[in-house]
Amino acid sequence: MGNNLLKGKKGIIFGALDDQSIAWKVAEKVVEEGGEIVLTNAPVAMRFGAIKELGERLNAEIIPADATSNDDLENLLVKSEEILGGKMDFMLHSIGMSLNVRKKRAYNDSNYDFMHKTFDISAMSFHRLMQMAMKKDSMNEWGSIIGLTYIAAQRVFPDYGEMAESKSLLESFARSFGYHYAKAKNVRVNTISQSPTMTTAGSGVEGFQQFFDYSDRMSPLGNASAEACANYCVAMFSDLTRMVTMQNLYHDGGFSKMGMNPDVFGM
Amino acid sequence: MGNNLLKGKKGIIFGALDDQSIAWKVAEKVVEEGGEIVLTNAPVAMRFGAIKELGERLNAEIIPADATSNDDLENLLVKSEEILGGKMDFMLHSIGMSLNVRKKRAYNDSNYDFMHKTFDISAMSFHRLMQMAMKKDSMNEWGSIIGLTYIAAQRVFPDYGEMAESKSLLESFARSFGYHYAKAKNVRVNTISQSPTMTTAGSGVEGFQQFFDYSDRMSPLGNASAEACANYCVAMFSDLTRMVTMQNLYHDGGFSKMGMNPDVFGM
Amino acid sequence: MGNNLLKGKKGIIFGALDDQSIAWKVAEKVVEEGGEIVLTNAPVAMRFGAIKELGERLNAEIIPADATSNDDLENLLVKSEEILGGKMDFMLHSIGMSLNVRKKRAYNDSNYDFMHKTFDISAMSFHRLMQMAMKKDSMNEWGSIIGLTYIAAQRVFPDYGEMAESKSLLESFARSFGYHYAKAKNVRVNTISQSPTMTTAGSGVEGFQQFFDYSDRMSPLGNASAEACANYCVAMFSDLTRMVTMQNLYHDGGFSKMGMNPDVFGM
Amino acid sequence: MGNNLLKGKKGIIFGALDDQSIAWKVAEKVVEEGGEIVLTNAPVAMRFGAIKELGERLNAEIIPADATSNDDLENLLVKSEEILGGKMDFMLHSIGMSLNVRKKRAYNDSNYDFMHKTFDISAMSFHRLMQMAMKKDSMNEWGSIIGLTYIAAQRVFPDYGEMAESKSLLESFARSFGYHYAKAKNVRVNTISQSPTMTTAGSGVEGFQQFFDYSDRMSPLGNASAEACANYCVAMFSDLTRMVTMQNLYHDGGFSKMGMNPDVFGM
Repeated sequence: MGNNLLKGKKGIIFGALDDQSIAWKVAEKVVEEGGEIVLTNAPVAMRFGAIKELGERLNAEIIPADATSNDDLENLLVKSEEILGGKMDFMLHSIGMSLNVRKKRAYNDSNYDFMHKTFDISAMSFHRLMQMAMKKDSMNEWGSIIGLTYIAAQRVFPDYGEMAESKSLLESFARSFGYHYAKAKNVRVNTISQSPTMTTAGSGVEGFQQFFDYSDRMSPLGNASAEACANYCVAMFSDLTRMVTMQNLYHDGGFSKMGMNPDVFGM
Repeated sequence: MGNNLLKGKKGIIFGALDDQSIAWKVAEKVVEEGGEIVLTNAPVAMRFGAIKELGERLNAEIIPADATSNDDLENLLVKSEEILGGKMDFMLHSIGMSLNVRKKRAYNDSNYDFMHKTFDISAMSFHRLMQMAMKKDSMNEWGSIIGLTYIAAQRVFPDYGEMAESKSLLESFARSFGYHYAKAKNVRVNTISQSPTMTTAGSGVEGFQQFFDYSDRMSPLGNASAEACANYCVAMFSDLTRMVTMQNLYHDGGFSKMGMNPDVFGM
Repeated sequence: MGNNLLKGKKGIIFGALDDQSIAWKVAEKVVEEGGEIVLTNAPVAMRFGAIKELGERLNAEIIPADATSNDDLENLLVKSEEILGGKMDFMLHSIGMSLNVRKKRAYNDSNYDFMHKTFDISAMSFHRLMQMAMKKDSMNEWGSIIGLTYIAAQRVFPDYGEMAESKSLLESFARSFGYHYAKAKNVRVNTISQSPTMTTAGSGVEGFQQFFDYSDRMSPLGNASAEACANYCVAMFSDLTRMVTMQNLYHDGGFSKMGMNPDVFGM
Repeated sequence: MGNNLLKGKKGIIFGALDDQSIAWKVAEKVVEEGGEIVLTNAPVAMRFGAIKELGERLNAEIIPADATSNDDLENLLVKSEEILGGKMDFMLHSIGMSLNVRKKRAYNDSNYDFMHKTFDISAMSFHRLMQMAMKKDSMNEWGSIIGLTYIAAQRVFPDYGEMAESKSLLESFARSFGYHYAKAKNVRVNTISQSPTMTTAGSGVEGFQQFFDYSDRMSPLGNASAEACANYCVAMFSDLTRMVTMQNLYHDGGFSKMGMNPDVFGM
């Protein structure tokens, strides 16, 4: 049961794959709070089918879009406006994939074509989305755009590979475009730097469990869950946070401010 | 008309002086959202009387407390629990005063007794409050404590004087105590770094208007108002932000992330 | 007259174009301090010829290299080791160019092929260089690698365009590779975040003079010159700074720590 | 054998207790590089006598000074100028002591009189020193002042207690006074954030060894030693770093930029 915090607000949620996805939880929570949404994901990710179940349950249409394609993004934004009957008040970017990591290339044996592709998918897609939204005038005044990121943009986690750079890039786009979108339409752009999350994507990675546990022990409140992240997104989409922009917001149970926590000993 | 976001939550608001105060707006907004509060301020600040009008309007009791007195804080916490019929879910610390600035001492001609007093009032009071709350077990699990701060803790604003150090201290207390309170009771502690605000205190300072305008022009969304800050406090007191702790959160229309804004030329 | 601080050390300096370049000053200063160097720049930049004069004066060989070409970098590293008679102790990366800025594309009208090319030249070249150096084992133990960057990686300077993202990327590579190179060979990797500098490239940009002056007035020590930057590079190449790694070091007369400086009023 | 990097430069070194002290190593290295120094420490610390041996060996006079006493600081500055035959070019502040930690008071059971005293000794002494130096015009143009600090000013190390706040305060003073001293005399003020160091003071603390080892494993280059720190201080006192001011400089083998290092597992 929500509080109608997003009543009358419309938006697009990227990246719901299955019920472990943060974006999935955001979609649920946003609708619970009265928001109306369009769901989107890459055509390839749609094949798994779970997103259709979510769409039906939330009464939300699904528009496939390759986030590295300007045409797909244009189509998504135009269609969403038609479907929802108005411009967007919020957008969630939850997209990330590293080809070098997937192909098990060591960081110091990176393939640069892969790296370009990784940046395109994981970071430049955020710029593409905002650039297209600005061109099509898809956002309402005082709208809110969020990208999900990770603290590897600030500190080294050896296994995170080139996703560290992707997140640095993503956060930089948030600042730069945040300036331009504030001047143009008072739209705010922020990134949420989330705890490691037990998603289907994440949990398959070797060593992920140990990494997850380390983060959990290091964080005084423990790792933030996908559900908690969805709540935070709701706060950031709501009118309660209109003057917060160009920020990278740690949603991590305090991990980012710990230097040492004796709880990690004995791992 | 609120959204019952703080329904059933109880707390203490420090620092409401008159209807220009951020704390005043927070009190109004918190009550609008269903929260129950006790108001407090220094005995000397109470003399002006406006806070009584606020208390009556919000149906909130007022308990004077010198935030540098452990006894006063103990009395405040114990009485508040009695009055509100339960432990606290939130507390707002909005206290700051520099003796050297007030006495017009240049930063490089500081009086160190004044400086100790400034730190005691503006920063150590935050530690005192949390230490006493922990000793008296005054907070509920998953409660939220906020201190108001300013970006002078990170960057130099020459006229801000030793308040820069007070705010650095305040933010450090938030981190350190945030760890301890998270481990003890899952209570979160954060600071909100607010735009310069046209309060009665602020607007009297020489050069404040120019400083305010500079900040306003530099910030892509303009300066955040006291009302907007109150909204942000509500979000941070609500259950939507449970996993955010030990953070310094800029609520500043983007000021903190600007390097240069052509709008400041010609001032 | 130097202090022999780099006596016996060998290295490669990228990016000397003419006597306004930071890299030019670094080359001069490094040689003055007893270091032996190879100069390199993009083949297209070599055409202007000034670098030959520098090479002759410093008795340094010049090896053209396109920093986006793995082959060119391999050739550069292998040849440099032959010429200098040993592995490298230091390398300076001073490379940056934005196609979208050069083509006068607005930030919110970016061409993404240009953007890829910009990242390749300005940031991925840093990764390429270090990856190749590690593969060819071109660095001595306790060597020092520096990339030049700008505070636009942290804060928005509207005219800086996608170079903001390039610098975010560059600094992230420094951290990530810094970890790997420390583990492998105790090599340190840092970025120096330099004041705006009156180079031939910079001074041609519209509005650069006003931007330069703003930065100069904001900085309590004024803008750092190219000569001063060269001195700082010497310190970072020397054995005095062996344990500093993965850092972004502001060399900016204090700009980065200023919130407001009354000296900028009246511009 | 030095490089005469500090030839002709004069300065004051605070905090040399015995040959484990960072300040002790700085004194040795500065003299090796041609600098002339006066040594100082608190009268109580002098009783142990080792500093006299250092003074004799380095041919440096020792002037006891309680860094919380304006009179003592005035005497120190005036006498040093007489002894060295000129104004100061550098000063090292290496002073820190927490009464609450020493008295084994838990962080959430702090005594506030102790806390005031801790701040006075560990942080306000830095302001006192600079204020007195400015009043007595004790520094030469382009001089360099360094305070030693620790990353607990940014992140929580539970056992570090109120020293976290002391270091936050110290770093804030460096920024604020850095502005004023730059404007007045082009003097730069920075803090060096050093790895945990096996000093006599440190090594006595319970749990210090484990903390030291954790930091050592987390840091890609390992913990920075006192000797390495002395080298870095020399670089920061030299003319190679004239334009670096108001910075907090990590000298920590990369610790500050690590998010997770698999080497800490199994501790």
